[in-house]
This record gives sequence, structure tokens and C-alpha cells, in this order.
Amino acid sequence: MTLLLSNEDVERALPMRECLEAMEIAYRDLGLKEGANGLRSEVLTPTARGGALYSLLTMSGVVPRFKIAAVRIDSDILTWPSLGGVARRVKVPAADGRYVGLVLLFDTHTGEPLAIYPDGVVQRMRVGAVTGLAAKYLARAEAQEVALIGAGFQAGAQAMAIAAVRNVKRIRCFSPDRQKRESFAREIESKLGLEVVPCDSAREAVKGVDIVLCATNSMEPALMADWLEAGQHVSSISRLELDPDIIAKANVIFLHVHEVHGKSIRTAGAYPPKDVEDKRAALGAKIAQAGWPELPDLLLDKVPGRGSDRDITLFLNYTGLGYQFAATGHVIYKNAREAGLGRELDTSLFTSALPS
Amino acid sequence: MTLLLSNEDVERALPMRECLEAMEIAYRDLGLKEGANGLRSEVLTPTARGGALYSLLTMSGVVPRFKIAAVRIDSDILTWPSLGGVARRVKVPAADGRYVGLVLLFDTHTGEPLAIYPDGVVQRMRVGAVTGLAAKYLARAEAQEVALIGAGFQAGAQAMAIAAVRNVKRIRCFSPDRQKRESFAREIESKLGLEVVPCDSAREAVKGVDIVLCATNSMEPALMADWLEAGQHVSSISRLELDPDIIAKANVIFLHVHEVHGKSIRTAGAYPPKDVEDKRAALGAKIAQAGWPELPDLLLDKVPGRGSDRDITLFLNYTGLGYQFAATGHVIYKNAREAGLGRELDTSLFTSALPS
Repeated sequence: MTLLLSNEDVERALPMRECLEAMEIAYRDLGLKEGANGLRSEVLTPTARGGALYSLLTMSGVVPRFKIAAVRIDSDILTWPSLGGVARRVKVPAADGRYVGLVLLFDTHTGEPLAIYPDGVVQRMRVGAVTGLAAKYLARAEAQEVALIGAGFQAGAQAMAIAAVRNVKRIRCFSPDRQKRESFAREIESKLGLEVVPCDSAREAVKGVDIVLCATNSMEPALMADWLEAGQHVSSISRLELDPDIIAKANVIFLHVHEVHGKSIRTAGAYPPKDVEDKRAALGAKIAQAGWPELPDLLLDKVPGRGSDRDITLFLNYTGLGYQFAATGHVIYKNAREAGLGRELDTSLFTSALPS
Repeated sequence: MTLLLSNEDVERALPMRECLEAMEIAYRDLGLKEGANGLRSEVLTPTARGGALYSLLTMSGVVPRFKIAAVRIDSDILTWPSLGGVARRVKVPAADGRYVGLVLLFDTHTGEPLAIYPDGVVQRMRVGAVTGLAAKYLARAEAQEVALIGAGFQAGAQAMAIAAVRNVKRIRCFSPDRQKRESFAREIESKLGLEVVPCDSAREAVKGVDIVLCATNSMEPALMADWLEAGQHVSSISRLELDPDIIAKANVIFLHVHEVHGKSIRTAGAYPPKDVEDKRAALGAKIAQAGWPELPDLLLDKVPGRGSDRDITLFLNYTGLGYQFAATGHVIYKNAREAGLGRELDTSLFTSALPS
């Protein structure tokens, strides 16, 4: 039987601690070339809505140790509205008010489709877990004060992940929207059972903390180099949110992985706003050239991490991998089966007597 | 509602003539850059069965004119058994005796998942239709005698396609397996209502015909250059089945498309037999260098086709595209809806209130 799971099922089946454990094992395997990430593909074409594009994104990966293969598909209507004078990429829930992102899991021993579920929950859990993994290896062991820049969808998983790898006492969070940062603080406080303080500025949030997590979708720097203090661990999930001078200020830098996506995009008679994409592409090229070590190098101790308690360490959590959906899929499928979650469909609906 | 279709539904919903029409429109759009093919990705890893590999293959494409996006996923157990001293790539039906190949269709105006179905039927229909399209433009208008080398799964669709684009009187078919070619001849004869003659050799089949269609999975040449006659149109669906001297003998050559797949394969601790893949890769590189015009160039009259009735024309139908699944998907979805085929599932099972 093939499992159909909802976001709620996925949320129940993927506790952050188990997500972190599976990701740690999977990233070691990736570094040892015992796991493989497939190529990413994005197709951009016209759509009905003015100023919007249709985007079909696919990515995949296999963790042989878990016997799990995953394909993630996003079928999105994209827009680039100008917010505060800056264009941002925003998805429109055009599918009857909902978004379309799917994960399909397969068994590498039989080929069978094991499960299908929306990618909404896992999308932020996997980003959070990678940030958490890097912090586990790079942040000072006694770190307990955290600044979180951003109070959106991704920020919540960043908080869950950091609380799972360090004995966090307090999170100081900032978002330019007062209401957003205050409700975020209340939500995370009750969810994680630790103090969360909304701050009036990013500068204020960062002052004196041990760990700075950036989780914005800002197109302009949200964290400045001269705010950083000795011993801090900094991480970022979005290329444009860091002041470029932070690179020079960091003593130790690790990149998530050196995947380059520029060549993965195909377009048909429709193009995203050039200035936005050019900015991203230029930064991507710079990062690719820098030759920084990757997360698997850190986990496998191929490259040393923090040298002293005064080092500023930096982790750039860019470029999502299809591979992450296989690692998280392993946990989701196992737990969903054990808990009897979801709805079962006859696997033969998704298989064929004909070869292909 | 999202449609779940079976191979039988797909077969009913995709008549070869409609398939050819949709592909012709779609390939013109591709040539005009009004349609786009996504990147292909294949991940190869270990699996349980000795001597086998697990393969996760994804491809995608969008035909904006049809408002259809498609993703095709194959989750296969691959083996390379030696048949008659030659290693061939063979899929094992390890999913409870069945194969796992899926197509997912999406609406480019809303992002919604429209349908999910196995790729078994469409897999050969799309290959056949591309062969048929090329023959429609390259074969002599009065062509009526056809040789078909191969009597397997693909050969059937080649026969359907050629019968749809020319007034075919007779097909002479060859397979080294006598029983196979005889039962194939009977099956196609009754299906297409034209004479199908099994031949004892490929040489015999090819003699005096107007069109030669190769549709084998042979790892050695199955059609020799010195068998060819003036005026014949020749096509091939597999890189190794043609005598390389045929290239020099042909007056006009068109390639399906110049997609290169070599870099799309990622492996983890497991590799296919090197000799087989090296041979394929060497041929692929040669083809990429040759700079032949592509099918869209022919359809859009950018490059002239046959110059005279004595020209030998050659079409190399290599490298499947995800784009083909969008073109055929348009026909399948429309006809399946009209005929009330398949099973409906609530679309909200595949969509999400969360962005991703």
C-alpha cells in the first residue's frame, strides 16, 4: 500500500530531533559518496496571471542506507511584488487557494512508491535541520543565547533546530513587522518552552548572543558585519540577507554544498525580473568560486571547524537538495507507518505491468 | 479533482493520430522557444539484488500552449544480463512483479495536479510519434512499403506511427526470435489492418522498401550501411543498433534533439557495467559533435529535408524528453476527462495550505 499523508501527518511524523539524526547520518553518507543527490531542474513559462510565471521545479536524491529515494516537485505560480521598494519572489496559492508541492518516496530495493505527501512542513524542517547540524559542530559548546533575524515560516524551524543541538536559554528575535515578531515570540516560547524576546532592531537582537541565525527572505542585508562579536556562530539561509563584509570577518566558513543551480533553469517565452535574478546569480557565482568546505567535510572531520572560543564561525545554508527529502522521508515514512497515519492507496495504482 | 489513470485508460485516451498532432504542435513550440524541456536527472545506487542497481530517473517539461506541465519519474531495479554474449540493460519488475514509472500532470495556470498515471503506454507512444513525425516530413510522399527491425514493445508503436503518416501497404518485420516476429506480425496485422510479413533476416526485410524503422535494444548493429537503397528513409531509436557507416551513406540527417545526458547521472557507491556505458557515451559524444539539425528545425522548415526522391534520409530518434510527457499528457487528460476514465481523488490531498 502507498501512503498519502497530509502536512499534519508529516508534522507528527517528523520530530526535529529525529530529523537532525537522520540528516546527520545522510550528510556523512553524502560526503563518503554513499548517498547521491539528483540534478535539480526548474522550468519557467508564461501563466494566466499578469506579471506572474509558472514554475515547475524538481529535485531528487537517494539515501541507500535508508533504502529511500525521494522526488520533490513544486508546481508554482510565482510573482515578484515590490515590498518596501524591493522585489521579492512570492508564491501565489492559485490551486483553489492552496500551494502545490509534493514529495514522492520510493523503496530502493523494490522500486515501489511508498508515500506521497505535501512538502510544506518538511520544507522548513530540512532547512532548519541543516542549520542545526552546522551549529552543533560549529557553535561554542556552552552557547545558550540565540538571536534570530526573521519571524516567518522558516524562522520557526530554525528555533526548533537550535534548541535541539544546544542548551538554549533565550532567543532574541527580530522582524521589521512588530506584530509579527511579537506573535512569533509567543508561539515559539510556548512551543519550545524557553524564553523568546522580540527586539526592536536586528542590532539589538544580535548584541551579546552566542549564536546568530538569519532566516529572512530579505533582498537587502539584514545582518551587518560590524555587529558581530568574537565567539559568535552565524548562519544564513538566504544569499542576500548577509552584509558581504561578514565573509571577511568570519574566521571559519562552511558552505552547505557546492551545488550550482544556474544552469538548471529553462525558460519558454517568459523570464523573471532580471535585476533580482542577476543579483542572486552574481552572489551564487562568487560563492561557487570561494571554494569553501562543505557541511559533509565538517561532519566527517575532513576540515577543522572552530579553532578557538573567540573565532567567529559562519555557515551558509544555501541551495536546497533533493537529497534532504530522502533523509527526512526515511523518518516520516517509518513514523507514519508505526503511528498508522495517513490514507492508504493500492500501490498497483502507481505501478505497471508494462516496462517503461 | 485529480485523476488517477491506469495504462488501459491511457491507451484509450491516446490515439496515435492525436498523439502525432499534439507532438507536432509541441515540437514547433519547442523550436520557437515557446515550450521548454526540463533537465533530466538519474541517480544510481546499490539495491538488494546482486548485480543490480537502483535507478531514480526524473524528467520534466512544459507546453504553455496546452497549459500542461509534466514530470515523469522512473524508479527501477536495473540489471545488465548478457544475452547472446552482449550485455543489455534490462529492468526488473521488482515492485510485486510490476514496474514503477509515473507521470504527473500539472495545470500551468493554477499549479494544480491534474492527473497521475503509469508511463508504460505513453513511453512507447511518444517514441513512436517522434519517429512518425520525422517520417512524415522526410520519407517520400508515396512511400508504402516499410521494414521494421525489432518486434518488441517499442516496435508496435513504430508501426502505429508510420501507418498514421503514410499510406502504408505492407510492413516487413524482423526479430532474431522467430516466434516473436511471427506473433508480432499477427498482432500488428489485426491491429492496423494492413499486411505484416515476418522476415528471416533484417537484410531480407529491408530490400526494396521505402522506409526502414529500427526499433531494437540491440547492442550491436542490426542495420548495415550497404543494405540501404536510394530513396529510403531510415530511422533509429537506439544508439547502438545502426552500422556507423550509415551516417556517411545518408544524404540528409536529422537528430531528435541535442540534449546531452552524460552529466545528468549521479552515482553512490554503485556503477553500471563500464563497457556498456562507455560505448553509449562515446557514441553520444560523437553525435553531439556532429552538429546535425534537430526535429524542430525540420518542422519549422529552418533546414531543408529530403532534396530528391533518390536521397537517403536518416532520423536519429535518440534521447527522450520530459517535454514529450507534457505534449502527450495534454491529449490523455483531455480525452480521459471527456470519456470519464480513471478514478478521482480530491486535489487537496496533493496541495497544501503551507507555501514551500
